[in-house]
Amino acid sequence: MAETVIEHVLGRLKILGIKDVFGVPGDYAFAVNDAVCNDNEMRWIGCCNELNAAYAADGYARIRGFSALSTTFGVGELSALCGIAGSFTEHLPIFHIVGMPNTRTQQERRIVHHTLGTGQFDLFAKMTEPAVCASAILTPENAVTEMERVVNAALTHRRPVYLAIPDDYARMTVLGTALPPATLPSSVPDTLDAAVNAIIEKLEIAQIAVILAGYLICRLDLRAEAQALIEATGLPFATMTMDKTALDETHSQFMGMYIGRDINPEIRQFIENCDCVLNLGALWSDLNTVAYTAVIEKAKMIAVGHHSVRVGHAVYPGVEMKDLIDALVKKIGKKSINAPKTHGLSEPEGKYSDRITPEYLYPRWERFFKPDDIVIAETGTTSMGLECAMMPKGAVFHNQALWASIGWATPAAFGAALAAPERRTILITGEGAHQLTAQEVSQFGRFGLKPVIFCLNNDGYLIERLLCREPMTYYNDLAQWNYAKLPEALGCTNWFTAKVTTNAELEEAMNKAEMCNAGVYIEVIMDKMAGPPVAMKMHESFARK
Amino acid sequence: MAETVIEHVLGRLKILGIKDVFGVPGDYAFAVNDAVCNDNEMRWIGCCNELNAAYAADGYARIRGFSALSTTFGVGELSALCGIAGSFTEHLPIFHIVGMPNTRTQQERRIVHHTLGTGQFDLFAKMTEPAVCASAILTPENAVTEMERVVNAALTHRRPVYLAIPDDYARMTVLGTALPPATLPSSVPDTLDAAVNAIIEKLEIAQIAVILAGYLICRLDLRAEAQALIEATGLPFATMTMDKTALDETHSQFMGMYIGRDINPEIRQFIENCDCVLNLGALWSDLNTVAYTAVIEKAKMIAVGHHSVRVGHAVYPGVEMKDLIDALVKKIGKKSINAPKTHGLSEPEGKYSDRITPEYLYPRWERFFKPDDIVIAETGTTSMGLECAMMPKGAVFHNQALWASIGWATPAAFGAALAAPERRTILITGEGAHQLTAQEVSQFGRFGLKPVIFCLNNDGYLIERLLCREPMTYYNDLAQWNYAKLPEALGCTNWFTAKVTTNAELEEAMNKAEMCNAGVYIEVIMDKMAGPPVAMKMHESFARK
Repeated sequence: MAETVIEHVLGRLKILGIKDVFGVPGDYAFAVNDAVCNDNEMRWIGCCNELNAAYAADGYARIRGFSALSTTFGVGELSALCGIAGSFTEHLPIFHIVGMPNTRTQQERRIVHHTLGTGQFDLFAKMTEPAVCASAILTPENAVTEMERVVNAALTHRRPVYLAIPDDYARMTVLGTALPPATLPSSVPDTLDAAVNAIIEKLEIAQIAVILAGYLICRLDLRAEAQALIEATGLPFATMTMDKTALDETHSQFMGMYIGRDINPEIRQFIENCDCVLNLGALWSDLNTVAYTAVIEKAKMIAVGHHSVRVGHAVYPGVEMKDLIDALVKKIGKKSINAPKTHGLSEPEGKYSDRITPEYLYPRWERFFKPDDIVIAETGTTSMGLECAMMPKGAVFHNQALWASIGWATPAAFGAALAAPERRTILITGEGAHQLTAQEVSQFGRFGLKPVIFCLNNDGYLIERLLCREPMTYYNDLAQWNYAKLPEALGCTNWFTAKVTTNAELEEAMNKAEMCNAGVYIEVIMDKMAGPPVAMKMHESFARK
Repeated sequence: MAETVIEHVLGRLKILGIKDVFGVPGDYAFAVNDAVCNDNEMRWIGCCNELNAAYAADGYARIRGFSALSTTFGVGELSALCGIAGSFTEHLPIFHIVGMPNTRTQQERRIVHHTLGTGQFDLFAKMTEPAVCASAILTPENAVTEMERVVNAALTHRRPVYLAIPDDYARMTVLGTALPPATLPSSVPDTLDAAVNAIIEKLEIAQIAVILAGYLICRLDLRAEAQALIEATGLPFATMTMDKTALDETHSQFMGMYIGRDINPEIRQFIENCDCVLNLGALWSDLNTVAYTAVIEKAKMIAVGHHSVRVGHAVYPGVEMKDLIDALVKKIGKKSINAPKTHGLSEPEGKYSDRITPEYLYPRWERFFKPDDIVIAETGTTSMGLECAMMPKGAVFHNQALWASIGWATPAAFGAALAAPERRTILITGEGAHQLTAQEVSQFGRFGLKPVIFCLNNDGYLIERLLCREPMTYYNDLAQWNYAKLPEALGCTNWFTAKVTTNAELEEAMNKAEMCNAGVYIEVIMDKMAGPPVAMKMHESFARK
């Protein structure tokens, strides 16, 4: 049957398993919006604004592997751009479909709405280029081949792609027939062999060795493979902040978190004293290493990347991560190494009648988590406080540790919950970050999802108070909201909401949250400077400077 | 006294009269944030998110002429980009100050937060370039000259500029001393004379002529000059949508609105039958002309632009709008022309007990407006319904008729109210657009402002229902909020709020709004397809296609 350009695009996305399209509709994108709504196998997921939609797509892709976003020209796509750049940074493939003005409007260089008024129609695609791994402006003639190229780029790089479609072209029939899916990069066999041998040699002579389970394991859907490798080696493994729950934290070989300067010194010492560190896709960024205080000599490191591996100082290009892991599993010998092991946070400290402190709250959250939970933690003190919590079997923990755009977590939690409505999604956010995107709470209610939301209200941007020169400077202050009243105002009328100040109130609210079959929103009141221990240590080391 | 780079930048902004900096703080921008807060003559205006901050800066610049915005690197600036592009489109000079990572981080190409992780630090400046008229990355050595260049560009083009400052450089002492302010473009004297003569000749032979008072009059702060010209010519004048209240609508020579196809046919006929139309800076865009149904022959038009004028087919470059208007005032002869005149909207239609209809609401709003009000109307059916309301003396009406980014109005109203707290600011928005940026309502309360907010709740994106193929398609549906409960949730606890469904309830709420000395938020419930007459006519003409 004759397929239109937009039908072809959506059909190709369905082959990847994408059934939901996040976005905000708009007149230049009506052809896209109509096609989604007219397709019985797809859903249009309207969001409050485009940035929130992009963050929601990011959260969805973290659970399902891919996602789709649709916005209108100019105003819509630029509003989403920070979210797309975040997905680029964090290796999440989002298909961003933009509806453009029709070709006659473009050819006549008309001054039309949602443009800069200069008669240029390719500017926004150019502005987007650094934040995507491929982009195309589709026509009936090029749609089949360009779509295949762009899909291939998304699969190869696991980053966002940009697809713009003029409104009239979107409704036209594609020319040409479907291509066989383009092949993905494969390893160069001899290089792969050489890399495997080099790695095995390095591991064999190592007295003590360790594995870092990095975030790329999840992004490339290699959890089973990576776990098989860890079990084949017998080596202990640790994860860094960005990589938390890359593999199950209940695994017997899991040591705990490796996070530089101030946390888990026994883990840090063990890892940094190893003769060999097999790093499966962890990134040496500032936040992941607490300002580069996690230090491993290059000569000791085997850094497995997406398309190459570095063994000590030598890089082996053209080696795919999956191929390398599979080959290692077959050839590697097992070691028995005694490694330290952490056991998460300590017991909650404090009396029931006390005001809530970090010493009570973070350990209590750890106990609140259940198997298979999806925990989305906002950038800031909340994610810092939770990074060493032990996650139950099957539970995953997501934050945005490289792009670190505050406001991401609230819509990302919506996207994740929509991707897995059968699991419990827990959003943990500070109130400062929450203000950026709080309206998206309404979508949980609209789509019948039942998240548990904790909004930590410490009267300002706490992470900034800890980092800046004068903690009480007024740019760290916020408008004072009544957070616990937000769900009702946003239409989540049957939710359980609470505002808690003491440990007893927190306990009662958490118990109700466990029992009620509804969305939950708990505002947790804390002191202005009440950060988790790791954040306070960071603050002290900054203050000493 | 030795001045730091950021002190120099802020000092230069103060010379332009900028005393407020909108934004969201962030660690790379602390030097900027600190400098603003440490300056007794400046205020930091923290917003909920960066896009909202950019829109607020846009609203402020509409009232004060200029404004300033500060965001952090990457995440902050990209979030604000849609707002900056809107200010570019609509000719509003915003100084966007971005805090960058320090130079050592940049030189070492470190993988740090808020970057794409590629070690590139100039990408975001490049992505921003199409949306600003000048940009600079400041150093101690170039700060004085670059700042002067950028200020000059902002004044010359009346568009946003981009200033990025590495964190360490911001706190260093500037090298060099303040330059004399760069001179602005001036007219080429002979070209100016030739243009003036050509215009006078064209006007003298015209039997009937008319003036269009365009938005550039306001953007270039030429209201007094333009009004003097209108009075010197004796000609009637009209305005288009984007230009509404460019000059006072109570002026005796004001005919009414000229808006293409469906409105004010007697105005349209008169204007299009004129021998000569003197267009003072109005733009022939799609929305301003209702899809180009406002048609004036090129030969008849004198199009006065910012730096040039077109007389019929001939362009005179190097002619400044102010110089041209001033010269015309001195030389032009007076005509006496009988022109039609509109008198705004008719009486509100409907009984008190009726549900609120557009036929009641829009005329009632017209009567609600008072002298010197600032009315901010969102893109969509609300601004369409209000474009023909007669505005009282000194009252101004703003919408975003070219960029037309929904969500703009709510933060823009906050920015406008902050710019003129002594005037009454009225925000009129549909609920669909309001959802994009609604959290900024909290800032009115935080800064002690007392706006009157009308949120028109018609259960979906009405403008899209009127434009798309299937009005009831579900992408036009929204999460159902309890809008009247928003102010309290957002901390505006002492406001008067109401949810009104009948004309009687509307009257009561409006009366209370007049009396109370507090912020006002009125949710107006309307039927799904209840658009103002002009929107319904547009819908019918689309449906006929």
